[in-house]
Amino acid sequence: MNQKIAVLGPGSWGTALAQVLAENGHEVRIWGNLPAQIAEINTYHTNRHYLPDVKIPDSIVAYDELAEAIADCDAVLFVIPTKAIRVVAQEFAQKVKNAPVIIHAAKGLEQGSHKRISEILIEEIPEAHRKAVTVLSGPSHAEEVVKHDITTITAASTDLAAAKYVQDLFMNDYFRIYTNDDVIGVETGAALKNIIALGAGAIAGLGFGDDAKAAIMTRGLAEISRLGVAMGANPLTFIGLSGVGDLIVTCTSVHSRNWRAGNLLGKGHKLDEVLENMGMIVEGVSTTKAAMELARQLNVEMPITETIYGVLYEGQDVKDAAKNIMLRDAREENEFSLE
Amino acid sequence: MNQKIAVLGPGSWGTALAQVLAENGHEVRIWGNLPAQIAEINTYHTNRHYLPDVKIPDSIVAYDELAEAIADCDAVLFVIPTKAIRVVAQEFAQKVKNAPVIIHAAKGLEQGSHKRISEILIEEIPEAHRKAVTVLSGPSHAEEVVKHDITTITAASTDLAAAKYVQDLFMNDYFRIYTNDDVIGVETGAALKNIIALGAGAIAGLGFGDDAKAAIMTRGLAEISRLGVAMGANPLTFIGLSGVGDLIVTCTSVHSRNWRAGNLLGKGHKLDEVLENMGMIVEGVSTTKAAMELARQLNVEMPITETIYGVLYEGQDVKDAAKNIMLRDAREENEFSLE
Repeated sequence: MNQKIAVLGPGSWGTALAQVLAENGHEVRIWGNLPAQIAEINTYHTNRHYLPDVKIPDSIVAYDELAEAIADCDAVLFVIPTKAIRVVAQEFAQKVKNAPVIIHAAKGLEQGSHKRISEILIEEIPEAHRKAVTVLSGPSHAEEVVKHDITTITAASTDLAAAKYVQDLFMNDYFRIYTNDDVIGVETGAALKNIIALGAGAIAGLGFGDDAKAAIMTRGLAEISRLGVAMGANPLTFIGLSGVGDLIVTCTSVHSRNWRAGNLLGKGHKLDEVLENMGMIVEGVSTTKAAMELARQLNVEMPITETIYGVLYEGQDVKDAAKNIMLRDAREENEFSLE
Repeated sequence: MNQKIAVLGPGSWGTALAQVLAENGHEVRIWGNLPAQIAEINTYHTNRHYLPDVKIPDSIVAYDELAEAIADCDAVLFVIPTKAIRVVAQEFAQKVKNAPVIIHAAKGLEQGSHKRISEILIEEIPEAHRKAVTVLSGPSHAEEVVKHDITTITAASTDLAAAKYVQDLFMNDYFRIYTNDDVIGVETGAALKNIIALGAGAIAGLGFGDDAKAAIMTRGLAEISRLGVAMGANPLTFIGLSGVGDLIVTCTSVHSRNWRAGNLLGKGHKLDEVLENMGMIVEGVSTTKAAMELARQLNVEMPITETIYGVLYEGQDVKDAAKNIMLRDAREENEFSLE
């Protein structure tokens, strides 16, 4: 089943996913809007800014013209930052001629509207020009995927046949795909886990140990599940690869940007200082705001998120914040009912 | 609410829990069967073999005579290794005069019978001599608890009033208790997580990265949940402190004995060598056998456990085993239904 697939977004994750697809025998095009980067991929088969030591398969062709990249494609994979996804989807909608399967691997909620990525794609791409939308998410570092290290990922779609098609596209010896029909659960888990990574980093920065790390991860998972369920997710999705799996990778790897930002906050640095020091976007900071707004709208209790919001946006002292959250009332653990 | 509480088992975890109770103002007795250790606790207020640098509160009195330790107690806490719990429960049943609340903090399944700890306690202690049985479990290192590091724990009982009583006994600023009514889920999660810790250690020993670690933890959690559910557990319990919380602490701390044993296996050492090198019991090794027997009885698919069983008991090569498990058929992720 040799397919034509366009990968929109030549960052590290887009490049790694393109490599998996090319190695599986598909015809892969990468699209990006930086001509120098596109030329580098086509001429040298490298993408040094994102994946310094990686040789990209020769069969992958890069384009800076979207219409060319997506022409006749069976599937189109969006690997675009959350804040740019709507504008790229609009451009795609203007230029697409057929009706490809739409896949995305972005993690976030739109600022202001709080919409999930698949909602944005469905809004912007007319039904006549797309098949089902599928989200890919799970515990994955691009750097490990390109080395053929074992990685497991969820492909979620409300149309299970579409999820199975995406599973077939990507599946091989080192890249394993599990299907799921809970798009809301997979997308909210992927976005909200970055809040907990900030908290886990802060707890470590404050000098707390492994018990406290496990506590904030577990109780954090409980509250992001609670918000996800209020948004329509299946609570059991949060026990899966896009939930606890991604949470583990993000909270226990010092390579996680969100964890590192939280860690610096825990050590007493100011937010401005931390963001400057990081030199890149820390998604968890804006996701905390979106989640707090959603929690208020939907009347969901999120004590850890609220505490992190206080530290990030209301100048609360991080040490006091950590203490306060521990002194909350005791409660029952299982909140969802199977009846 | 000043209570009289006997803690049976003066290991590191029993001693740490006794300290929490004493600091909360309760009258605490520790019982153990090594007279020298009992004398050390009463004379020097230390328990150096288990917690080298800890000063035990003066108010705690240790006994080597069980009848004295448990006389008139409101609650009795069993912190006894799985293989000794039945014989201690039998001795307790002979000597108890009143009907205390029974609490335990042991993690395992009885060899041969595959019984959970609370089942053993209920079998051996006549109903007239006990109130409800409650299990305490969650991500916790005794070494962190005695330093007043933040720790969160689940107290589970089929009688929620009993769980709330236990919550009140232990709860303070650094030790936080969440109640749960799913005893089966809490006990099976606590026991089975050690199997996955062996696997996570082996994966690291083989040189795999963070993606693979998250994968084995997440898919491992799925299969221990599956066995737990077949035994009668609520699948959502595995998303809680005694499930994913304890799994995180056990699989991401190099201090975990089970993780270290798995790590040595992954590096190519033979099981005999590993166990000799460890110099103590590695619970996951016998739990793997119990889980495999249960999985066959209950017709539950546990591919990771089966693979680890093959390495431990059937001489399978650890490298081949890791590869084989990645080549299994793709599947759907969510197995439990909320309907």
